[in-house]
Amino acid sequence: MYELHIANKNYSSWSLRPWVLLRGLGIPFDEKLVPFLGGVGANWDAFRAFSPTGKVPCLRDGDTVVWDSLAIAEYVAEHDPGTWPADAQARAWARCAAAEMHSGFPALRSTCTMNCGVRVRIDAPGEALRKDVARIDELWNEGLARFGGPFLAGKAFTAVDAFYAPVAFRIQSYGLQLGNAAMAYAQRLLDLPAMREWYAAALAETWRDPEHEDEAHRAGAWLQDLRAS
Amino acid sequence: MYELHIANKNYSSWSLRPWVLLRGLGIPFDEKLVPFLGGVGANWDAFRAFSPTGKVPCLRDGDTVVWDSLAIAEYVAEHDPGTWPADAQARAWARCAAAEMHSGFPALRSTCTMNCGVRVRIDAPGEALRKDVARIDELWNEGLARFGGPFLAGKAFTAVDAFYAPVAFRIQSYGLQLGNAAMAYAQRLLDLPAMREWYAAALAETWRDPEHEDEAHRAGAWLQDLRAS
Repeated sequence: MYELHIANKNYSSWSLRPWVLLRGLGIPFDEKLVPFLGGVGANWDAFRAFSPTGKVPCLRDGDTVVWDSLAIAEYVAEHDPGTWPADAQARAWARCAAAEMHSGFPALRSTCTMNCGVRVRIDAPGEALRKDVARIDELWNEGLARFGGPFLAGKAFTAVDAFYAPVAFRIQSYGLQLGNAAMAYAQRLLDLPAMREWYAAALAETWRDPEHEDEAHRAGAWLQDLRAS
Repeated sequence: MYELHIANKNYSSWSLRPWVLLRGLGIPFDEKLVPFLGGVGANWDAFRAFSPTGKVPCLRDGDTVVWDSLAIAEYVAEHDPGTWPADAQARAWARCAAAEMHSGFPALRSTCTMNCGVRVRIDAPGEALRKDVARIDELWNEGLARFGGPFLAGKAFTAVDAFYAPVAFRIQSYGLQLGNAAMAYAQRLLDLPAMREWYAAALAETWRDPEHEDEAHRAGAWLQDLRAS
């Protein structure tokens, strides 16, 4: 059985991607969670014990170590063709969109750090953030219109949806506004059983990592903190 | 035939990856080069005409638009199995290493911006750059030792080598020091016919983009500029 190493569910957007992919596809795995404590990199040795980069996520399958989220998707795809869309055009599009998230959207990732359990009001989004959100809106609209929904590349939940799953939590936490079709898609992601399971676990976590908390505080005014204390 | 849209050969490390992959695999393509002029994003409309993100590289195959370097590798792999190693363990490793470059090494990418034709002396590399270089050294050593070389994941040149090809130019331009095995591998990359062809074309370019030039000037003291004027 796969072993999937992840960090805090409240914070770790990179961990969420393969986790929700495997859950969404119904692929069983052993979850191994090591929380961030005292900032990303502070307990690097603990992460380095299972991952060559000291980062999450990391999938282990017997002797094989797969230490990157997109490489995990491709590894899983070799054994489970449902990982990517069956249609070649949709598959090429889905891989591009997932890879665009993998290397891009720096403003969205840094100014709206994933923090599932808080609600924050951003009063003056910077231009870089507005551009990233506009691109998400454009991309989601294109996928939904072109492949017919309800998921980004067609009828089935695939890896491209998993790669944008953290954005749904960011929209919820920071009150980001996208067009109607994109907002409805984000809600569909939040309503997935796998996403509800992750969210409930995130709210139940009592670890507080100062670096991640500071990032979310810098984003704007905190309206609510729904996490267990 | 594929159409591959790229930017300046002297600067565009992202463009180099699929270009050297296709050349290295012997796959024919039409090259379409639009130079950066006045900074990345300054002639964004020209890039947006062929790529939905306004970025390079972008592969077009008939109606199919593949707008990310890693997605291009996977697209090509569907038609040419030589894109990734044939051995499953080597293939998983190669995909991880390529994806690690795709989303990582920010210090190496920003402080040693690719500029094929210049030679720069970095007197005091920062800690972030030293860490990135140490990780490259570690990763290359692991691949070469584990899969037997001469390429990163075994006997054949594959997409993982293409993803690290820009690092070979950075080592040459900025005098970066890695261990013997890694330095020999970088030299093997530079000696590939496809890399020599790219390098000659980069030196012949007379475009000068102020943003890229400034980045390379900030890196350290310029020793040589080998480019055509």
